[in-house]
Amino acid sequence: MKLIRKLMSLKNAEKIVYEHLYKYLSENKKIKEINIIEALNKISAEDIKSPIDLPYFNKAAMDGYAVKAEDTFGASETNPIILNLVETDEIFSGEAKKIFTGDELPKNADAVVMKEFCNEVDDFVEIYKGVHPNENVSRIGEDVKKGDVVLKKGDVINPYHLNMLASLGIKKIKVYDLSFGIIPTGDELISLDEINNIEKDINKLKGKIINSNSYMLYGLVKNLGFDAKIYDAVEDNKEKLKKAIKTALNENDAVLITGGTSVSERDITIETVKEMGDVIVHGVNIRPGKPFGFGIVDDKLIFMLSGYPVASAVQFELFIQRFFMKRKKIKIPLKRNIASELGRVDFVRVRVDKEVEPIRITGSGVISSLIKSDGYILIPENVEGYEKGELVDVYLL
Amino acid sequence: MKLIRKLMSLKNAEKIVYEHLYKYLSENKKIKEINIIEALNKISAEDIKSPIDLPYFNKAAMDGYAVKAEDTFGASETNPIILNLVETDEIFSGEAKKIFTGDELPKNADAVVMKEFCNEVDDFVEIYKGVHPNENVSRIGEDVKKGDVVLKKGDVINPYHLNMLASLGIKKIKVYDLSFGIIPTGDELISLDEINNIEKDINKLKGKIINSNSYMLYGLVKNLGFDAKIYDAVEDNKEKLKKAIKTALNENDAVLITGGTSVSERDITIETVKEMGDVIVHGVNIRPGKPFGFGIVDDKLIFMLSGYPVASAVQFELFIQRFFMKRKKIKIPLKRNIASELGRVDFVRVRVDKEVEPIRITGSGVISSLIKSDGYILIPENVEGYEKGELVDVYLL
Repeated sequence: MKLIRKLMSLKNAEKIVYEHLYKYLSENKKIKEINIIEALNKISAEDIKSPIDLPYFNKAAMDGYAVKAEDTFGASETNPIILNLVETDEIFSGEAKKIFTGDELPKNADAVVMKEFCNEVDDFVEIYKGVHPNENVSRIGEDVKKGDVVLKKGDVINPYHLNMLASLGIKKIKVYDLSFGIIPTGDELISLDEINNIEKDINKLKGKIINSNSYMLYGLVKNLGFDAKIYDAVEDNKEKLKKAIKTALNENDAVLITGGTSVSERDITIETVKEMGDVIVHGVNIRPGKPFGFGIVDDKLIFMLSGYPVASAVQFELFIQRFFMKRKKIKIPLKRNIASELGRVDFVRVRVDKEVEPIRITGSGVISSLIKSDGYILIPENVEGYEKGELVDVYLL
Repeated sequence: MKLIRKLMSLKNAEKIVYEHLYKYLSENKKIKEINIIEALNKISAEDIKSPIDLPYFNKAAMDGYAVKAEDTFGASETNPIILNLVETDEIFSGEAKKIFTGDELPKNADAVVMKEFCNEVDDFVEIYKGVHPNENVSRIGEDVKKGDVVLKKGDVINPYHLNMLASLGIKKIKVYDLSFGIIPTGDELISLDEINNIEKDINKLKGKIINSNSYMLYGLVKNLGFDAKIYDAVEDNKEKLKKAIKTALNENDAVLITGGTSVSERDITIETVKEMGDVIVHGVNIRPGKPFGFGIVDDKLIFMLSGYPVASAVQFELFIQRFFMKRKKIKIPLKRNIASELGRVDFVRVRVDKEVEPIRITGSGVISSLIKSDGYILIPENVEGYEKGELVDVYLL
């Protein structure tokens, strides 16, 4: 009888997988430099420091007149102060220069009086309202200082980052670059292509399930900014599986196999990979997601995921997603108690509002729980559960 | 002097823009039906109801033996119950059938005994542990019931949805389909292409800023699943702007113009669009983002956004993003007081942890505040601000 005899702790399993991922990325230089616009939603492989101060000069934040602020102190509607209009790049006490939003301030000017409070008369301007130093001015480095980190290694590049990078004159950026082959396994799988009208075809589905994990894994890989390729489903047959793995390994950096990782007689994935290379992790003390395997074949990475949708989603999250991308973590009070077993990490799908509500589920195959959740809690091994009202860490999806 | 004389309320402006967007989408059938895998991250244009129960039959959730639960009551290690092994599609009292995870239960069976608690001897199986009805069974409709809505109009299709859709035999889905042309305007703009080394080129930038909003808007449009095309920056010149708008209108459903929407002498965007068609909204009582314009030219949509990065990001969020995509809303206590002006909606960028921290900012041009925020608060017109500790609605980015 095949058994996952000793379950590895999540911490150890993550450490092993992450070390191999890191090693693979570095040794194979799986990083490419691309134009920033192509980097949207990809993962930065470098810290980006600002090469300059932004703004790079003191500039007007309003249309009006650049002045030395002290010249305007005390100005009011009944008692305007009159300054000489100049057009030079430098002003002196008693002078003002007409300026538009975004223009560089002339030397010595330290404030802008909004045009609404000014009146131009010949070569003079009447100032009806005093300004303090820096008023209506965007100062050098106010937004970003030279050397500030504006994007960190591991950040997903979003539209706002693109704005920042362009503003700093940064045209190219290094991102992680990987390709994943996805191999679904299991005699019970039927292809979506074979279904024309599911209500009429429902009898085709007796004892079968539609190969749906491939679509999810494809989406998860794509959303990390990586290439994904789905291969045809493979029966529970070692030779056929070996052939599929070989093809996928040739064409990709890593392979995701879904199905056949548990201990049933039909579960041949782990054994098959063992015969082709090394299985380094098999069985992790988490729920759901226990039957996870990780191995190396031909120096490439093989992730063996459960055939259950939720379990495979959890495994992808813990062993791949979280390596590349930090999830936003917030603290919110629990809506009701959650129990957990000591010695095991529980991955609890939740809905977040003003409280965190664990989603009631009955099995690791319940796909609707994935769709309903917008975050998750990880209950550590040494915690028996949390009580209603407790502030818990929620990772947002 | 040009003035935004009367500011429209956010509510009215949104109503007008949303109605025109809705009208445009319906009249022009800007919806396409595509394969689910291509629909990743696009916006569903339909409610999807499940055509079937999922699972579509009662199935084993474990490897073991399908039984009538009542036959096993009282079974224990010291007092096993012995059942006849059968291979039929229907079992009767006193019978059991070997079954694998995922297999359909034979008729009359209502539970599965895990194989660990069974021992096969010839044509019999010894049961060492009783099960209750439904134990180790995934019941029909447990995940989704026929008619349940699994994806709503307006939902962004994520990898988990793909799993659900495939599981239900749904191959194609209708998504919104729009194209946006992006026109940056302003004499002060310099193209990123002209910068080779920003530290050396810093003098080129005196009085100029790099055209960075185009990149952000491109990313924002793309992340709604739409097509985006960036056009060359246009000087503050009506004829040149008209020409650019005409080209962009010919090639797209909608045009985003960034810059020239305020009331400075150089701000010609609104006037230019007025000469080509109708400007329906100009000036909204929000901060930042006040100088927003919306118009119709040749029956197509023109969004006139501020030239300031933050203001244009806010305008995009309020008038485009939120039309298509609901933001996740949570309630978290405020870390410190926020003041707001009565009569105006304040859009406050925040960072969320166990409290909500408003990001201190000094101007609508501060791009770093966009990068630092992971959510925002909208302070309504009739609220003067919020106090530290108050529970506030935060929209997560």
